[in-house]
Amino acid sequence: MGKERLAELRSQLDEINIEILELLSRRAELVQEIGELKKAKGTDRFDPIREKEMLDKLVAANPGPFDDNTVRHLFKQIFQASLGLMEEEKKVLLV
Amino acid sequence: MGKERLAELRSQLDEINIEILELLSRRAELVQEIGELKKAKGTDRFDPIREKEMLDKLVAANPGPFDDNTVRHLFKQIFQASLGLMEEEKKVLLV
Repeated sequence: MGKERLAELRSQLDEINIEILELLSRRAELVQEIGELKKAKGTDRFDPIREKEMLDKLVAANPGPFDDNTVRHLFKQIFQASLGLMEEEKKVLLV
Repeated sequence: MGKERLAELRSQLDEINIEILELLSRRAELVQEIGELKKAKGTDRFDPIREKEMLDKLVAANPGPFDDNTVRHLFKQIFQASLGLMEEEKKVLLV
């Protein structure tokens, strides 16, 4: 029985992984669109105040089991990956 | 007009952040349940083959704009945070 339950939980984990990937990808597209708007306005695309605001909202909504520091760490990685996308775009424009 | 659009995109970003957090938290609970089952069976909770399998599935499903390496990097961070949860549990049990 434990074996069947394990297979079931693993299949749920695979599904949730894909759902997270889809949301991360939609999020990255949003960040790209925001970057385009900011570029058009001539404002800097990295905004540490806005980033802190997003992290504070996430920590306030954290249902657990991750502790707040882990939530901050994971989302900083996500933010950084999105900035990385914009950097690549910049490189593409420069060459 | 750009200002309104920016506010709208930011509000969408805040929503998607919370959705990602909720999925990450549900995922962490699943991992905890899998860890409990494995503990009961006496098997090691860290399984590099299963981890590679999950990463391969994610890369195969990657819709962009993140490149495959970024997807791998982000999910490795997520996996590690979940293992971190189990380590803490272990510490709690040891003291």
